[in-house]
Amino acid sequence: MTAKSPLAPAGFPPLPPVAGVRMAVANAGVKYKDRPDVLLAVLDPGTTVAGVFTRSSTRSAAVLDCQDKIGTDADTGAAILVNSGNANAFTGGLGQASVDAITHAVAGACDVPQDRVFTSSTGVIGEPLPHDKIIATLDALHADLSTDRFEDAATAICTTDTFPKGSHRSVDTPSGPVTICGIAKGSGMIAPDMATMLVYIFTDAKIARADLQKSVSVLNNKTFNCITVDSDTSTSDTLLCAATGASGVDVTGSSDFQTALHAVMLDLAHQVVRDGEGATKFIEVSVKGAKTDEDARKVAGAIANSPLVKTAIAGEDPNWGRIVMAVGKSGAAADRDRLSIWFGDTLVAEKGWVAESYSEDAGQAHMKQDEISLCVDLGLGDGTATMWTCDLTHGYISINADYRS
Amino acid sequence: MTAKSPLAPAGFPPLPPVAGVRMAVANAGVKYKDRPDVLLAVLDPGTTVAGVFTRSSTRSAAVLDCQDKIGTDADTGAAILVNSGNANAFTGGLGQASVDAITHAVAGACDVPQDRVFTSSTGVIGEPLPHDKIIATLDALHADLSTDRFEDAATAICTTDTFPKGSHRSVDTPSGPVTICGIAKGSGMIAPDMATMLVYIFTDAKIARADLQKSVSVLNNKTFNCITVDSDTSTSDTLLCAATGASGVDVTGSSDFQTALHAVMLDLAHQVVRDGEGATKFIEVSVKGAKTDEDARKVAGAIANSPLVKTAIAGEDPNWGRIVMAVGKSGAAADRDRLSIWFGDTLVAEKGWVAESYSEDAGQAHMKQDEISLCVDLGLGDGTATMWTCDLTHGYISINADYRS
Repeated sequence: MTAKSPLAPAGFPPLPPVAGVRMAVANAGVKYKDRPDVLLAVLDPGTTVAGVFTRSSTRSAAVLDCQDKIGTDADTGAAILVNSGNANAFTGGLGQASVDAITHAVAGACDVPQDRVFTSSTGVIGEPLPHDKIIATLDALHADLSTDRFEDAATAICTTDTFPKGSHRSVDTPSGPVTICGIAKGSGMIAPDMATMLVYIFTDAKIARADLQKSVSVLNNKTFNCITVDSDTSTSDTLLCAATGASGVDVTGSSDFQTALHAVMLDLAHQVVRDGEGATKFIEVSVKGAKTDEDARKVAGAIANSPLVKTAIAGEDPNWGRIVMAVGKSGAAADRDRLSIWFGDTLVAEKGWVAESYSEDAGQAHMKQDEISLCVDLGLGDGTATMWTCDLTHGYISINADYRS
Repeated sequence: MTAKSPLAPAGFPPLPPVAGVRMAVANAGVKYKDRPDVLLAVLDPGTTVAGVFTRSSTRSAAVLDCQDKIGTDADTGAAILVNSGNANAFTGGLGQASVDAITHAVAGACDVPQDRVFTSSTGVIGEPLPHDKIIATLDALHADLSTDRFEDAATAICTTDTFPKGSHRSVDTPSGPVTICGIAKGSGMIAPDMATMLVYIFTDAKIARADLQKSVSVLNNKTFNCITVDSDTSTSDTLLCAATGASGVDVTGSSDFQTALHAVMLDLAHQVVRDGEGATKFIEVSVKGAKTDEDARKVAGAIANSPLVKTAIAGEDPNWGRIVMAVGKSGAAADRDRLSIWFGDTLVAEKGWVAESYSEDAGQAHMKQDEISLCVDLGLGDGTATMWTCDLTHGYISINADYRS
């Protein structure tokens, strides 16, 4: 990993074991030679699995395979195998062959049906996956399974990430206590409106697959689908959420569970932004007063994806004119003379011009912080949206102008 | 101006006078203290004027004023006044007051009706335009009008541009010879599908306003609306085309005239890309085989605006996986297994994977050039589109992280 993002949390959070979940990592040497690059998670019988995936029309063989499998109820055990360093995307017929080989081998090693083995690959696009190297690690992985491997797991799935990402909540529902732990990887090629990077969430709660899927889909739209680093969308984006039921606590319809799951997903989504390639500022863009929520989302997205807004923030320049520009290009209904803009608590512009009370010093002071808050009120209706992004810096160029070569 | 773009033409082309057009420039000190920042063009009676403008919902007072005036037939003289350094955008009621003051003063100085004075402003957004400084230069401007000022004019309208942009064609139509000369400014905040930066085209041809407007609108969609530097769209984008009729040559329905006008507009559009902020590569993205032209445009736009494609090219990395990614996120119909990709004449990928004949050396050799050609065949239909863009480099970050502060 390169130097840790200045926006990284202090350290990897202590993640407690989740009953029914065991994991192990290994170095298969797919691309990285000196760090774990394969994660195996084995889930006890009774586990339900839900997921959301990239909507890219060039999504990888692994994503297509997961999508085929995700909609089926089952009460057998299950397994997840993830490799980093190679995305197995756009590899023609070889791609599906690699997925078949891996899922077949994992099914054998872990004694679960092949249609309950989910696999993800992340890394370079267009190079065949050396799946034999991965399969060769399976015996060792299986022998090493443990309930206490979240940080290793989060590290094994990283590519250009500068820190491993984990989050957890323990919550007392009316039926009893449950635990939710999640890990994520993502740093570049991050855009909302499709799905997310790689995210694996585990809980010992008991919940039917369809109910879990509904929760995950709804919460995904408020979390991972509201972040962007560079407006580019991965061919491999996958979020899997596995509920083992091992706690015996049924959380169907529990708002406490929903709240906790939301918190874990939002925390992980924010960590992805905090690890945005080259990021030095964490930016919250909130839009209100739009004609519709959809319009608010358009405006938030136009601001969050604007290279000119993001470079201004990198330069700590309170250049609110660029926010006006982004509102203008968004395609959402907007009236220049009803528009208001805030940096943090500071009113910057209103009624079509800079606010009388605004001073450049106040704007500058906000821009000096690590965490930037931009708020736009369109003054037209009740539509709202919030998105999170990071600034666009020399670091992004350095990372991406020589990532592969 | 900062160091000239490595993609700049050898020099400003020799632009011949256009009968009926006189220009002058001055330094009003709006923002720049040591270079011309105001352009006055005066057009003889009989001139028709057509135009296209940004579709931004936060467009400037000057744009709104031009749009109000552009659709009216008139045979009086006309004038165009352009300043650089301040966009007079998002300046509330003051914005329109500045436009009124300027157009009123120009009308008086040049003896043309106020509703035939068009004004444009380009530069920082959100700061009031010191229009008195501009008006103070009018007498000197008027006294200095000349038919031989294209390079000065092209220089006066620049902001972050590193070279002035001009183009011309002289063409023999069936009715006789006519001349077309154009100037443009634009470097950042450049995105298609709205209109363009600032472009002024002059011809001595005789053509009715409605016919000229139709030509300009159609050709704009094949030229300025097909370029992007950073996906951001200016609040000030304006293209004005004035036909003085002074040659007496009626070009109504002349395909020779259309071809020449197209050539001037395409040349200027390409020059804007060649001066893209931080650009080191000129990139042509052509898409064919799409289900529809609209789909082809979506794919071309997704590739041309992708930060990951543009940084890969900056790093001279033939990372075609990122092109697959961009196709996937575009929203257009695509089938991974029918997709083909070329770098120049080199077939890179086909049938869902890297081409057998492809060698990384061949891809790398193409990437080393200043002019990059990317072609994608979706293999689904007859839809085509071509767009032009530049790479995304440290230079873009440097320019935009401290443009205003």
